[in-house]
Amino acid sequence: MGFNTSRRSFLAKLGIGVGSIGAVAVACGKSGDSYNDRAADYQKFKDERAAAVSANGSAGTGSSGGHGTAPVVQAQGHLDWREMDRMHKKGVEDFVANASKPSGKYGGQPLDFKMEGDVKVFNLNAVATKWEVRPGETKDVFAYNGVLPGPEIRVTEGEKVRIVFKNELPESTAIHWHGQKVPNNQDGVPFVTQPVIEPGATYTYEFVANPSGSHMYHSHHNAMEQVGKGLLGAFIVDPKDKSKHPKYDKEYTMVLNDTLLGFTLNGKSFPATLPLTAKLGEKVLVRYMNEGLMNHPMHLHGMPFQVVAKDGWLLPQPYMADTLDVAPGDRFDVIIDCDAPGLWAFHCHTLSHAESPQGMFGLVTVLIVEDPNKA
Amino acid sequence: MGFNTSRRSFLAKLGIGVGSIGAVAVACGKSGDSYNDRAADYQKFKDERAAAVSANGSAGTGSSGGHGTAPVVQAQGHLDWREMDRMHKKGVEDFVANASKPSGKYGGQPLDFKMEGDVKVFNLNAVATKWEVRPGETKDVFAYNGVLPGPEIRVTEGEKVRIVFKNELPESTAIHWHGQKVPNNQDGVPFVTQPVIEPGATYTYEFVANPSGSHMYHSHHNAMEQVGKGLLGAFIVDPKDKSKHPKYDKEYTMVLNDTLLGFTLNGKSFPATLPLTAKLGEKVLVRYMNEGLMNHPMHLHGMPFQVVAKDGWLLPQPYMADTLDVAPGDRFDVIIDCDAPGLWAFHCHTLSHAESPQGMFGLVTVLIVEDPNKA
Amino acid sequence: MGFNTSRRSFLAKLGIGVGSIGAVAVACGKSGDSYNDRAADYQKFKDERAAAVSANGSAGTGSSGGHGTAPVVQAQGHLDWREMDRMHKKGVEDFVANASKPSGKYGGQPLDFKMEGDVKVFNLNAVATKWEVRPGETKDVFAYNGVLPGPEIRVTEGEKVRIVFKNELPESTAIHWHGQKVPNNQDGVPFVTQPVIEPGATYTYEFVANPSGSHMYHSHHNAMEQVGKGLLGAFIVDPKDKSKHPKYDKEYTMVLNDTLLGFTLNGKSFPATLPLTAKLGEKVLVRYMNEGLMNHPMHLHGMPFQVVAKDGWLLPQPYMADTLDVAPGDRFDVIIDCDAPGLWAFHCHTLSHAESPQGMFGLVTVLIVEDPNKA
Repeated sequence: MGFNTSRRSFLAKLGIGVGSIGAVAVACGKSGDSYNDRAADYQKFKDERAAAVSANGSAGTGSSGGHGTAPVVQAQGHLDWREMDRMHKKGVEDFVANASKPSGKYGGQPLDFKMEGDVKVFNLNAVATKWEVRPGETKDVFAYNGVLPGPEIRVTEGEKVRIVFKNELPESTAIHWHGQKVPNNQDGVPFVTQPVIEPGATYTYEFVANPSGSHMYHSHHNAMEQVGKGLLGAFIVDPKDKSKHPKYDKEYTMVLNDTLLGFTLNGKSFPATLPLTAKLGEKVLVRYMNEGLMNHPMHLHGMPFQVVAKDGWLLPQPYMADTLDVAPGDRFDVIIDCDAPGLWAFHCHTLSHAESPQGMFGLVTVLIVEDPNKA
Repeated sequence: MGFNTSRRSFLAKLGIGVGSIGAVAVACGKSGDSYNDRAADYQKFKDERAAAVSANGSAGTGSSGGHGTAPVVQAQGHLDWREMDRMHKKGVEDFVANASKPSGKYGGQPLDFKMEGDVKVFNLNAVATKWEVRPGETKDVFAYNGVLPGPEIRVTEGEKVRIVFKNELPESTAIHWHGQKVPNNQDGVPFVTQPVIEPGATYTYEFVANPSGSHMYHSHHNAMEQVGKGLLGAFIVDPKDKSKHPKYDKEYTMVLNDTLLGFTLNGKSFPATLPLTAKLGEKVLVRYMNEGLMNHPMHLHGMPFQVVAKDGWLLPQPYMADTLDVAPGDRFDVIIDCDAPGLWAFHCHTLSHAESPQGMFGLVTVLIVEDPNKA
Repeated sequence: MGFNTSRRSFLAKLGIGVGSIGAVAVACGKSGDSYNDRAADYQKFKDERAAAVSANGSAGTGSSGGHGTAPVVQAQGHLDWREMDRMHKKGVEDFVANASKPSGKYGGQPLDFKMEGDVKVFNLNAVATKWEVRPGETKDVFAYNGVLPGPEIRVTEGEKVRIVFKNELPESTAIHWHGQKVPNNQDGVPFVTQPVIEPGATYTYEFVANPSGSHMYHSHHNAMEQVGKGLLGAFIVDPKDKSKHPKYDKEYTMVLNDTLLGFTLNGKSFPATLPLTAKLGEKVLVRYMNEGLMNHPMHLHGMPFQVVAKDGWLLPQPYMADTLDVAPGDRFDVIIDCDAPGLWAFHCHTLSHAESPQGMFGLVTVLIVEDPNKA
C-alpha cells in the first residue's frame, strides 16, 4: 500500500510522465527504463535552481549589517537568526531529498476493485495503526486500509458501487459518502440511517455513483475523533459525459487536515509532503478537500488557478484566484494553467499552519513546472 | 411566545402540512383535526427507519471482533465503546422524541404586528432571562421578547415599519437592522447614529423595508457580549415582485451561533434542535444566518442545495453545493430540491461543533423528506 | 513618511475632495486654501449628528427603568453599565477627534519612485521599530520603510518594476510579491527560489507588473512572525486597459490583520483607524486584503457593495453583499454605491475583533457619505 510496495503506480499518480521528480530512478540505481531521462531532467532543474540561488546578487554579503562572527543572541528566547536560517534551509533540502526518493508510506493511491456482474466491488477496512506524519513524528491513527488518507475510491458516474467494509477498530464506526446521493439507508449515520458497525463487524454499502466530481468518504460516528484520527479519503466520480467538463492534462488531490495529526496535506506534514509536477503548458486539476476543523486558504505562487467546481458541481461561471479559502467539508476543483517554469510554493496562507521560526511545516508543498525546451 | 402558547403557529412555521413530525398530535391526545393523519405518517416513517436499521446486515454480529462480554477499557480515559454507542444512540432517540413532542420554549416565531395607518408596528423588548439550550442545560441570556432567537420580524419590501422597543435589560443597548438600508439615524449604532438606549428606556425605530431578502436584527452595543448572550433575530423582507425570485414550497431559517450559549441552531443544541420536514418533490428554502463568532460550513446529506442569494441579494449565477461556509454576519439563501426520501443529517461540518465522544450536540439537525406514495 | 511629513498626500489619499474630514484645516489653523470650506462642511456634519443623537426620542429618560442615582454594580466583575456606556462613547469621540486631526504615523501611502530608463525603481527597507497601534498602545514591530502597512507600491500593468531592498532587521528575510506572476527567481521564497537576505544585505527584485489588480507584498521567511510583526504592504497594479474594468470615483485599501499587533485595520486599532469618506453619489472602490491568520467578514452598514474582483481578477459575474468573508491571503475588490448620506459603521463582523465591554476596538472604522446639497 505504501510507497515501497507500489512505486510505479505511485509515480503514475504523481503524474511523472517525462521528468520532474523522476530522480527517484537515480536514487534507486534503476536503469533501462525512462526513469533515467527524468532523473537527468530533474538534476538539471535542481542545478539551475542552485545556480540561481547562489548567483542572485549580494544577499548575505551586505557591508552594513551589524552581524559579526558570534551568533546574535536575540531577546525573549528567540532563535539566533543564523540557526533559524539553517533550520529553514534544512527543511527545504529535506523536502527536495524526499521528493527525489520518498521515504515512508503515502496514502491516497487508487483502490483496486473487482467486478461482480455490473457492480464495482471495493474492500475497505479500518484499523488502529501508526502513521509517520513526517520523519521523527509518528502518531497513533485510525486509517482505512492502513493508509492516510485512505485509498482513493474512483468510479464513473452511474456505476454501481459496493464497498465491503470490515471494522477492525477497537470501537464502533460507520462510513458517510460525503457528497454522494445515496439511498437513505446507505448514508452512514448510526442510529439515524443504519445500525452502528461494531468492532469486528462487516458492513456492506451499495449505491449508484452520483453525482460526479470530487467527493469524500469518512467516519460519521464519534467523527470529531475518528476523522481527526485519520478515517478519511477521497471518493472521486468521473463524469459519464466529459464533454461539458473542462479539459486538463493531469490531476492531484489535496486532502487538508488540522486535527490530532497536526497540519497535514495528504496525511503528511512538510517536508514529508510530495511536490506536484507538471510540464510547461500543461493544465493541472487540483481537487482541494478539507477534512479538518479549520479553514485553509490555499495559495499558489506564480500562477493563478481557475475555480471550476464546488463540491463536485461545475460552477456556472468559473473564476480566477490565487488564494482559495477551503472550509471543513468543502471540495473545490481548480485548474492551473502551468505557464510559468520553476518551483512554486503552494501552501495554506494561514501562516501558523505553514511556518514557524524553525522552518516551514504542515500545509506546504511545491508545484514544479518544468520547461521541456530547456532539457 | 414559547411552544406551549402558540403550538399551532409553531407547527405552521415548521411547515407541517401533511405529516412528518405531526406526531405531536398523538402525544397531546388531540383529535378531530388533521394532526392524527400526520402523526400516523410520522409513526410509519419512524417504523420504516427502525426496520431499516435493524434489518441492515450483520453489523454488530461480526465473528472476528475481539470484543467479549466485558467492556473494553480504553486508554487515556476514553469511554468504553459500548458506552459511547449508547450515548450516541440516546442522543438520536432524544431528538426523535423531542421532534414528536417538542418540550421547552422555541424562539423565532413570526412576531405579531398591528397596522397604524400604512405602518406595520411591532413591539419588541429585551430582557434578561433563562434559556434552556437543551434539557438540563439552562443559561442566563439576554433575549428579545424572552425567546431565542428573537421573534422573526417579517415584512414586505417597501412597507413602512415601526419597531417600538423597550429596554428591560440591566444595561444599555441599541438595535441594528443588519442588511437593511435604513436612514442613518435608524441604524442603531450608539454614539454614532443615535443615543444609547438606557435600562428602562423606550426607543422607536422607523424605516421603509428595503432591500428584500434574509436579514437580521441584533444589538450593536456591547455587542460581543449582548449578541453572544442572545440579542438576535431574523428580519425577513419578502420581495414586492416575486416573479424574478426562485420558487419554493416552504422555508426554514437557521440561525447559527457559537458563543456564550455554546453551539446553537435557532437557540437550541442537538438533541433539542427541531427537524426540517418536506414532502418528496418539494423545494425548500433555507435561510442560513450566522450570529456567532466562528465560520460554520453547513452540510446537508443526501441532496445538494442551490445557493441563490447572499445577504438578501439574488446571485446572478446560482450554484450548487452540499457544504456552505457561513461566516459571522453572512446570510445565504439556498434551495433544496427534496428528491430523496429519508432522514438526512444536516449539520455544521466543523465536527467539533457537532459531535463529541458523548454523541452529537450543537449545530446538528435532520431534514426529513417523506414520500407520500408510501403513506 | 508619517502623517506629519506628508499631510497633503495623506489627505489626497483619504480622498478629501470637498469636505468630510477636512476639519484638519481648522485644527491646524490653516487658511487661504480650500481646507476651510471642507472644515465647515465637516463641522456641519458633526453638528447634524449631534443634533440627531440628542433629539432622537426619549432614550435614557424612560420612567420604568430601575436605575437610580447609584451605579448599578453588576455580577461577575462586569462593568457598571454607565461606566460601560461612558467608555463606548469616549471611543467614538476619540475616533471623531482623531479623524479631524490624525495623530501619530499612518502607513500605506504611495511609495515614491524614480525612472531608470523604462524601469520604475522603488527603494524599500525593513527595520525593527516601534509602532503606535492606538494611543497608549505601542508595539515592537518589523516594518517596511518604518510604517505599517508598508508603503503602497503602485504601478501599471506591463511596467518594468525594480525594488531595491535593504534588510536592516536583526534577522534574515525575503519578499514575496503575492499575486504577481514574477519569474521564479524573483518569487521571494528563501532556499527555494533565492538565497535568504541576511541582516545588512541588499537585494534587488525585478519583474514586469502582471496581472493587474489588488496584490500584496510581504515577508516569506519566518513569515508567521515577520508578517505578524508588520512586514506587509499593498502592491497595486492599475490595468493597462481600464475599459473593461468597473468605474469608480475614489478608492481605499483595507489591510486586515490580527496577529502580534492585535486586530488592526491599516496598522491601526479603533479609535485610531481613519474613516473612509465619499460624497453622495460617488462610487468607492475598497480593496480588502487579509494579512492575518483569521478570517474577517467585513460588514458595511447602510449600503451593500458589489464584489467585482478576487485576487485582482475581475469576477465574470459580480454579486452584491453587505458582509464579505476575507480569508488570510485573500484580496477582494468591492464597489460601494454611496447613495445614503451619514456615518456608517464598517467593521469585522466577528464581534470579538471589534468590540469589548470597554467599547469598540480593532477592526472598526466608519464610511462617511456626505450630501453636498446639505452644505
